[in-house]
Amino acid sequence: MQASADQIAKIINGKVIGDPHVMVDGPCKIDDGINGKISFLSNPKYAQYIYDTKASVVLVSDDFVPDQDVAVTMISVENVYVALAILMDKFSDGITLKSSFAKSADIDPSAQIGDQTSVDEQVIIKNNVHIGMHCRIYGHVFIGDNVRIGDRVMIYPGVKIYHNTVIGDDVIIHANAVLGSDGFGFAPDADGRYKKIAQVGNVVVGNDVEIGANTTIARATMGSTTIGNGVKLDNLIQIAHNVSIGEHTVIAAQTGIAGSTKIGKRCMIGGQVGIVGHIEIADGTMIQAQSGIASSIKEENSKWYGTPAIEYQNYLRSYAQFRRLSDMSKQIHDLKKTIDNFKSEN
Amino acid sequence: MQASADQIAKIINGKVIGDPHVMVDGPCKIDDGINGKISFLSNPKYAQYIYDTKASVVLVSDDFVPDQDVAVTMISVENVYVALAILMDKFSDGITLKSSFAKSADIDPSAQIGDQTSVDEQVIIKNNVHIGMHCRIYGHVFIGDNVRIGDRVMIYPGVKIYHNTVIGDDVIIHANAVLGSDGFGFAPDADGRYKKIAQVGNVVVGNDVEIGANTTIARATMGSTTIGNGVKLDNLIQIAHNVSIGEHTVIAAQTGIAGSTKIGKRCMIGGQVGIVGHIEIADGTMIQAQSGIASSIKEENSKWYGTPAIEYQNYLRSYAQFRRLSDMSKQIHDLKKTIDNFKSEN
Amino acid sequence: MQASADQIAKIINGKVIGDPHVMVDGPCKIDDGINGKISFLSNPKYAQYIYDTKASVVLVSDDFVPDQDVAVTMISVENVYVALAILMDKFSDGITLKSSFAKSADIDPSAQIGDQTSVDEQVIIKNNVHIGMHCRIYGHVFIGDNVRIGDRVMIYPGVKIYHNTVIGDDVIIHANAVLGSDGFGFAPDADGRYKKIAQVGNVVVGNDVEIGANTTIARATMGSTTIGNGVKLDNLIQIAHNVSIGEHTVIAAQTGIAGSTKIGKRCMIGGQVGIVGHIEIADGTMIQAQSGIASSIKEENSKWYGTPAIEYQNYLRSYAQFRRLSDMSKQIHDLKKTIDNFKSEN
Repeated sequence: MQASADQIAKIINGKVIGDPHVMVDGPCKIDDGINGKISFLSNPKYAQYIYDTKASVVLVSDDFVPDQDVAVTMISVENVYVALAILMDKFSDGITLKSSFAKSADIDPSAQIGDQTSVDEQVIIKNNVHIGMHCRIYGHVFIGDNVRIGDRVMIYPGVKIYHNTVIGDDVIIHANAVLGSDGFGFAPDADGRYKKIAQVGNVVVGNDVEIGANTTIARATMGSTTIGNGVKLDNLIQIAHNVSIGEHTVIAAQTGIAGSTKIGKRCMIGGQVGIVGHIEIADGTMIQAQSGIASSIKEENSKWYGTPAIEYQNYLRSYAQFRRLSDMSKQIHDLKKTIDNFKSEN
Repeated sequence: MQASADQIAKIINGKVIGDPHVMVDGPCKIDDGINGKISFLSNPKYAQYIYDTKASVVLVSDDFVPDQDVAVTMISVENVYVALAILMDKFSDGITLKSSFAKSADIDPSAQIGDQTSVDEQVIIKNNVHIGMHCRIYGHVFIGDNVRIGDRVMIYPGVKIYHNTVIGDDVIIHANAVLGSDGFGFAPDADGRYKKIAQVGNVVVGNDVEIGANTTIARATMGSTTIGNGVKLDNLIQIAHNVSIGEHTVIAAQTGIAGSTKIGKRCMIGGQVGIVGHIEIADGTMIQAQSGIASSIKEENSKWYGTPAIEYQNYLRSYAQFRRLSDMSKQIHDLKKTIDNFKSEN
Repeated sequence: MQASADQIAKIINGKVIGDPHVMVDGPCKIDDGINGKISFLSNPKYAQYIYDTKASVVLVSDDFVPDQDVAVTMISVENVYVALAILMDKFSDGITLKSSFAKSADIDPSAQIGDQTSVDEQVIIKNNVHIGMHCRIYGHVFIGDNVRIGDRVMIYPGVKIYHNTVIGDDVIIHANAVLGSDGFGFAPDADGRYKKIAQVGNVVVGNDVEIGANTTIARATMGSTTIGNGVKLDNLIQIAHNVSIGEHTVIAAQTGIAGSTKIGKRCMIGGQVGIVGHIEIADGTMIQAQSGIASSIKEENSKWYGTPAIEYQNYLRSYAQFRRLSDMSKQIHDLKKTIDNFKSEN
């Protein structure tokens, strides 16, 4: 797509400040801007770059107030990220799907596959699988018995989907993610040996979910491990058996959630967070990266930090004192001495 | 399998409390129980559900004392989880293995493969590999030169096993796990560049081991990285080169163990734990999730928490004070003021 | 290779202490030494083993001073690890590459592949890919559209490389690593739903880089995620979109780096470290395992620990006090009581 600032402003409901006729044909970053491209300014840390970027147009927020003259044409919008998401879609090469099954794919004859779905090289599709329309299944994907996959689903190379998994519409799963491997369940016997508990449940993924590369989601012991509509999971995340994650919750990379825990809706969970099993996390909970959640969180929209996590501001206050703990120890020692002297004098 | 409460009680050595003739044909969870199914109660958090579950039978512990009338038929047993493990096996569809080699598998003619072992689609088996009897090798598995695999081993899709790896009997390896990739060993030169140290050892896995999805086990620099009999590793775990893990130790997801560390027998290690290299951990050690172990643990059966980890109860006590550190700081400040006033008055 | 102590000393520029004619034909560990093999002593923890090792020769540092008689022949060198790296290379079986394309590989006719590069079974190579000379592409590797790969590159089984990725010379990528999956970028709308921001950038990897098993490197939103020359990444690491990592930086397993952060040159980053997005880390920074870096580090060669990380020695000092926080709390309480008594008496 090539478009003028004016045309772009119409697409994203923005206002042009500068030359409405300047043409752009793709996006670029603001700090190494490129002539003929459009960039964006959202994080204030990058504001310094707008004054001499080589980009031809920059998206800015309605409330951006430059502190010197801006030469580049700007388009101001209410929400820069939403505008950007819309534009990036326009600029990205539309992938035209054509229904095609690669010769080297092993597709069981029992599979039911919708129109305009493409199955690439060396995919394995086992017994009794249903796949919807307009899907793309990349190379080296494995789809086990009885799996159900909705419409417009993209499954990138090397994803492994165990038997009985259910996946909704408009889902994206990145390379080498694993869905439906056995939950980690063992019964210790009297000798301290562990006997495997069969994991006979499955994984159910809602609509409009994205799952990152090398992320693992375990099948339920019985019942289902469930990922709600609109959930976004980053790379290398571990979701244990019987977990459920509420709608529109986002989780950053390398976080782990232990068995049977229920995460609420619209939570924001940072990277490398650990959450113990068998607890409930209220809707809208925010958890700072690397925190450890050891018990249920009942209040909605609260913010947490630390291991075990406490209220966010409280953690910051305590940690500020932690940094000066040897001073504090010395102060106590000095006080004790002062008092002892005092006592001996009186 | 369909069976009466009475028949089930005989299988798991339990006692029926209620109707011995009620029939069940599979498991269900207690909180959304299903008529005609058997559930179980172990975690006291779920006790509330037993009074109105729709399940037809519930397994309970011998020491369970209901605090109101229970309508459902119960079977009481000494260890609910062991009983459950036995029953789940009975209910799970037995997978009948038939010896079959998929046409699209690339199997080197030098491979020796035992009876009733099945090699699925697009498996790659390189030179001089031995695989035992009654194994199942799922699609997209790679088995490198000289690998030895025992009997009754299940290897799920996408697992990659480097050359010279040795795997015992009754092992389960989940999707996309990697065994035998190079250890992380480099020699810095005078210019701060790193020269790779060839990793010429291997990985040796004992009997009755389970290895989770996307877990990585590095080959030894020389000698072997060893996983003892009965060890259970969850998903996304990192085991570095030359580590050895003692028998019947269990490790939860996302934990990492650095090079040459020796873990004892029957340890229980939580998720996201980090253990430094070149140390020894005594038998029966328990390590709380997210802890960091920075030096050897010599006392058996001790419990640890924190980064760097200290004795578990000590961590909890210290952390309780950490939460009120700003109060503590204020108290010191007030004391100092009181004393200063006192001094100036006297 | 079989060689005498004397011949080996010449290769690694060392000095023989003992029998110059003793022969060895491979490496072994010092604690379970093997007759006819060469071992090494670097970590002082292992010094005890030198007095009765069964190895025939042991590499030691120039400054090693035994505290009893040593029977085994020693070769002393300036840097044991560099000497070891050189020797291990000599002892490891040289892999002879022959140009060969496996029949079961799916290679698009548009691919340009250099001399003496081998493409193994079931590799998928998509449109317009260039691969240099002397490379080995193992089984089940996926290489997307327009990928460029240099000379002497080893790509182990199951690696997935998304479109437009660029890889330099002498790179090693271990099994099931993922390069170029979408960055984790979403724009929340007014209803708390997340709209995907297209990720149209790529991943650029320099020369002489090693990337561990199951590590994930996300493609840039626009521009490139860059891994500098000589960088070594261990297993299960997450590198988010638009991150850049400076030359000769090493990162241990399970560390995660959030979006757009710039890591300097020659940094040493421990395992399970988390680094937030949009910050800069100075050259030569050392970060202790499990630390969390929450803001930019400007001073070169500094050392950090904790979450959020503070100066290393300061963390250790504070943590020493943390361990006795309940004592400290009691002391304050006692002081207060003493003063109160004092006041009431005066």
